[in-house]
Amino acid sequence: AGKIIAMTRTGCDQEHLSFVLFSMPGDISDRSAYLRGDAVKNPGYAIAGQLEKMSELGVTSAVIACNTAHASPIFDTALGVLKDKGIKLQLLHLVNETVEHIRHVLPAIQKIGVLGTQGTYRSGLYGEALAAAGLQAVLPSHAIREEVVHAAIYAPAYGIKTSGGVVTEKARELAHSAVRHVREQGAQAIILACTELPLAIAEEQFEGIPIIDPARIAARKLVKLYYPDRLAE
Amino acid sequence: AGKIIAMTRTGCDQEHLSFVLFSMPGDISDRSAYLRGDAVKNPGYAIAGQLEKMSELGVTSAVIACNTAHASPIFDTALGVLKDKGIKLQLLHLVNETVEHIRHVLPAIQKIGVLGTQGTYRSGLYGEALAAAGLQAVLPSHAIREEVVHAAIYAPAYGIKTSGGVVTEKARELAHSAVRHVREQGAQAIILACTELPLAIAEEQFEGIPIIDPARIAARKLVKLYYPDRLAE
Repeated sequence: AGKIIAMTRTGCDQEHLSFVLFSMPGDISDRSAYLRGDAVKNPGYAIAGQLEKMSELGVTSAVIACNTAHASPIFDTALGVLKDKGIKLQLLHLVNETVEHIRHVLPAIQKIGVLGTQGTYRSGLYGEALAAAGLQAVLPSHAIREEVVHAAIYAPAYGIKTSGGVVTEKARELAHSAVRHVREQGAQAIILACTELPLAIAEEQFEGIPIIDPARIAARKLVKLYYPDRLAE
Repeated sequence: AGKIIAMTRTGCDQEHLSFVLFSMPGDISDRSAYLRGDAVKNPGYAIAGQLEKMSELGVTSAVIACNTAHASPIFDTALGVLKDKGIKLQLLHLVNETVEHIRHVLPAIQKIGVLGTQGTYRSGLYGEALAAAGLQAVLPSHAIREEVVHAAIYAPAYGIKTSGGVVTEKARELAHSAVRHVREQGAQAIILACTELPLAIAEEQFEGIPIIDPARIAARKLVKLYYPDRLAE
């Protein structure tokens, strides 16, 4: 929500984009758990249900603010339900929008680091989209995925999800070391492919390397679709 | 939205409070403009319409994230529409919640600075609620209201509303100087009585004086109502 507002240049409240935000996590099972087979219920159905309610409110474009939910077993299920019900809603694809944005603003870059949840890696989400665009994904080693990236997001004592958006020093250090790890593997830019990570790394550049926040790109796209003349950057 | 999440201590997404956020500014005319007679349409009707839609989504408690909308000509209109339509929705009162919170956490304090929009001052909003609680409101002088507080929020070149939540250095300086002004008038704590001001002063203390953010108090109250055992602080 804040990213949509920040992307809009306007003189008063009334000229901002109208939007609704649904945060109903209890209805949507963990996306990573579903992808690794630890949850039976496909969260795509609950997501489609919420998108349907949004459509009834008059919403015409939407984005799911979770990278892992864009894995095709989940995203295509949600999309299928919308199609079957004849719901007219333009559903942006967070991953494809991000890759398109990178090609546009960083045309000289070839190797892109991807930091995300285990579900994101398991589904090959960014790897495939980047490859389709002629770009190469640089993924952390298995040890770093588990002990650094996953820990920064999920660790009970200090993870970003656990601490309710207040980033602990430990989580921030882990996120920074994950960035350095993929940079050492050759990454020339880094996608923070989990909505929690930009809380730990808010900068657009970190130690000289461009940091890509998919939610920010989606927010920009939504403003561009409706108010191209009010786009802040 | 961020304040609700930050107020909840939990191990995973699914245990967070379910909420919806409506940001449909185009439908709701400027609250301050209505209160000073420059807008004919009472924004209370549009606010009630949005609360009704929320109720249809299953929402049982809500708060309007705008202090000025709590001026009785607006708030009571919205409340009246909800009552007439038989809509069961607990509508928190941002101002009363704030005053109650101050009495609870800062029982020794008597004089409270109030920084807000012209509409907030014109309606006597915090002044009356504080007086009813035996507290004294310390308001900025008329010159400071216009040239400092109003400018920080609304100035076309650098105001917080204009710059889409990205606080300019000028707006931050003005907000700081307004805080110092009411402190010099004897304020022992300061209410940031306009949702934009906490963007410029995010600290809980500023130069030794407690800073009160009504939206944060309302977020805390919502979490407390539903998940008292998960309250972060």
